[in-house]
Amino acid sequence: MRVLGVDPGLTRCGLGVVDGGAGRSVSCVAVGVVRTPVDAELPSRLLQVSEAVDDWLDTHRPDVVAVERVFSQHNVRTVMGTAQVSGVVAVCAARRGLPVSFHTPSEVKAAVTGSGRADKAQVTAMVTRVLRLRKAPSPADAADALALAICHLWREPIRARLAEAEAKAAELARVHRARLAEAAKRRENRTGTGLT
Amino acid sequence: MRVLGVDPGLTRCGLGVVDGGAGRSVSCVAVGVVRTPVDAELPSRLLQVSEAVDDWLDTHRPDVVAVERVFSQHNVRTVMGTAQVSGVVAVCAARRGLPVSFHTPSEVKAAVTGSGRADKAQVTAMVTRVLRLRKAPSPADAADALALAICHLWREPIRARLAEAEAKAAELARVHRARLAEAAKRRENRTGTGLT
Repeated sequence: MRVLGVDPGLTRCGLGVVDGGAGRSVSCVAVGVVRTPVDAELPSRLLQVSEAVDDWLDTHRPDVVAVERVFSQHNVRTVMGTAQVSGVVAVCAARRGLPVSFHTPSEVKAAVTGSGRADKAQVTAMVTRVLRLRKAPSPADAADALALAICHLWREPIRARLAEAEAKAAELARVHRARLAEAAKRRENRTGTGLT
Repeated sequence: MRVLGVDPGLTRCGLGVVDGGAGRSVSCVAVGVVRTPVDAELPSRLLQVSEAVDDWLDTHRPDVVAVERVFSQHNVRTVMGTAQVSGVVAVCAARRGLPVSFHTPSEVKAAVTGSGRADKAQVTAMVTRVLRLRKAPSPADAADALALAICHLWREPIRARLAEAEAKAAELARVHRARLAEAAKRRENRTGTGLT
């Protein structure tokens, strides 16, 4: 499975394509950053990011897009821009029928380093190691995009297995309830026959 | 000038097209609301809004798009969705080379009702009156979209005149500074000649 990870941002938007192999093996296909000028108009900046993402989707043809889930706890202006970029990226994916998966920063950190509170340097170091890169991806946005893709590849099987187990459990419960209802009906019928 | 006003939202996105005539005369061209199902996936909802806006832009061919500026002071989840929609709308406009103008809710209320703290009912009543509509636009998102377009039409000439006045003042200041520098240089040259 090939994943495009996106660390959304207006000034720097990190993009990273990762292929998942057998087990937990992962390999880096491409990594980069789209920059848009701070003094440009917002719509033009969003369009530039949109076109870059379209370009990456066409070039690398991922199966899924993993985007950082944005929270509004930080700087308001930055968060608005980040949310707008994430919306634009989601539309690029949806237009191609690609699923989009959102992961929180702590999910990404936990998946890649084992700790949801790891710092940027630890994330970059682990990304560099698991992808066997000769040098650390830079800037941090590029490393974060790769981390998002890896997080998706490693979490997805667990999530899928969990969903399957839940579906199976729900089906068993349904069958069990149906049998109980059937038994109750039979008992009722027998009692009914006895009384008339 | 024709303006498409957009009151961004995921569940309901208000759209209103208004033509501006001589002075403050305005007329309603079209008004409506795009709804997306609450239980659908976010990327698909954003795509639906994006396609609806594309459709409105192609059908009504506005000269400019006026969008509500989103603040993060309200409910976090709602604000994120609203910000994402506003980003997607901005890209639809930018792709056609159309300017996008952002107005805050209080700018819109002040422009349309005279008070930045008017309530929804007052905004709807004024929109209905100035556009000479036979009945009030409903839901409120549709009225808000029309109010945004009217706000843009009424504020834009003032903003343009202000920008022109500022540019003229800056040019006068530049000429003045150049003359001062020229005079200082001449004085220096004269003094210089006197000394040697």
